Amino acid sequence: MIPITLEFETTVITKEGSEPKQETVAIETPFRVALNDKPIGTSMVLPKGLEEFGVGFLFGQGYIEEPGQVKEVYVCPEGRISVYADVEDVQPKEVIITSGCGGTGRISKKMLEGAFGPLSECTISMEEIGQFVLKVLHLSDLGLKTHCIHGCGFWAKGQLVAFYEDVGRHNAVDKIIGAILLGKIPSKGAIYTTGRLTSDMVLKCARIGIPIVMSRTAPSSLGLAIARRAGVTLAAYVRPHRINCFHAPQRIIQK
Amino acid sequence: MIPITLEFETTVITKEGSEPKQETVAIETPFRVALNDKPIGTSMVLPKGLEEFGVGFLFGQGYIEEPGQVKEVYVCPEGRISVYADVEDVQPKEVIITSGCGGTGRISKKMLEGAFGPLSECTISMEEIGQFVLKVLHLSDLGLKTHCIHGCGFWAKGQLVAFYEDVGRHNAVDKIIGAILLGKIPSKGAIYTTGRLTSDMVLKCARIGIPIVMSRTAPSSLGLAIARRAGVTLAAYVRPHRINCFHAPQRIIQK
Repeated sequence: MIPITLEFETTVITKEGSEPKQETVAIETPFRVALNDKPIGTSMVLPKGLEEFGVGFLFGQGYIEEPGQVKEVYVCPEGRISVYADVEDVQPKEVIITSGCGGTGRISKKMLEGAFGPLSECTISMEEIGQFVLKVLHLSDLGLKTHCIHGCGFWAKGQLVAFYEDVGRHNAVDKIIGAILLGKIPSKGAIYTTGRLTSDMVLKCARIGIPIVMSRTAPSSLGLAIARRAGVTLAAYVRPHRINCFHAPQRIIQK
Repeated sequence: MIPITLEFETTVITKEGSEPKQETVAIETPFRVALNDKPIGTSMVLPKGLEEFGVGFLFGQGYIEEPGQVKEVYVCPEGRISVYADVEDVQPKEVIITSGCGGTGRISKKMLEGAFGPLSECTISMEEIGQFVLKVLHLSDLGLKTHCIHGCGFWAKGQLVAFYEDVGRHNAVDKIIGAILLGKIPSKGAIYTTGRLTSDMVLKCARIGIPIVMSRTAPSSLGLAIARRAGVTLAAYVRPHRINCFHAPQRIIQK
């Protein structure tokens, strides 16, 4: 097991005085991702769910496109994720560095402007959303301890099927997408993130076909524009019994 | 003036029913940054403080190093920031994509492993921190309205000298660093961000010589490690009358 937190002694200072305090810090560490032995990039991550991260990272960068392509993933704890996949050799693309957090905070112009494939159609009820959000928040104890972690869950067929955390909100989404590409979970379901829905967050969900994208917080203008273009249901400010739907509310069942 | 928000009609859904609601969404839009007419990269930004952003972005990518190098900056509202600077032609570097939000969520290995120059020495009192934080929070109305914005302020010689906002927490820091490089503010002071202090956030502050780095929230392990290596004062969970100092508390005056 690679450690994901460390304990650190800090000094609390007020006008009245100072005193020592123990804090838990989330570990952020570089991992290099290689595809078929070719180094693609290095990203800072929380070292957990690394197989999924490696695959999701390569999806975000446009190297892997669909489930079934990935053959094997090896994680070397010293900082390397080696993915072997059945893909053609891909050349680097013109990338846009996104405003979002980012293991895969880079998207190609082609991805941003291209057409989207069909989404994996499904619906979710307000009752399910309530269970989903409470389960994700219940599992987010690392976030509560370190205040430096985003959580991301996936709901399919009436239950929580995946939950990942990372220092970067994008990385957490990448881990979910990696799990889809590795065949661990379907894309037919709803994703919920504690992070904001900026352009690349929504883009990668739309590209993999997730029909319902939800956040504890807000979308940006471009995240919203992508959801509208792709026909993705975008729900923001999601609470157990209340959501604020910015696009395609027809997938939300009001019961 | 380029708009920075848009109004959007959403649907609030509960189990009891649904109703329309007006929301304000922060604008996230791509801007291409060029140095001496050579395109360097495109980043998603909140279109405000773009001159500072362009310069800070080029610092983050390692193209501009110190005040005085920048000669002129032109902003084309259609999406281009042209910076003209007195620098040698620089080749692309091996970059690490960081866990952080990111316009400049990419750092080179050399930056991460290299030595730091001297910091611009100064101190700050708890009384000043109280004024500083309250002023930044008071100015952060865009963040309150959109929930999609990070704010970043700079305090020097007993007053708030700069405040910038962006969809990305890195971009907001880049705007402060751009302001330093453009000679609008000194580097001798304290920076306060509403975002987390991951590696690249602390790294760029240390590289430009800012001695005191403060956040409303937490550092990551690598952000903390960089602060310790550079000798930067790192204060987290900063509130008007209380801070949690993770490194170098000697620059904090307890009065």
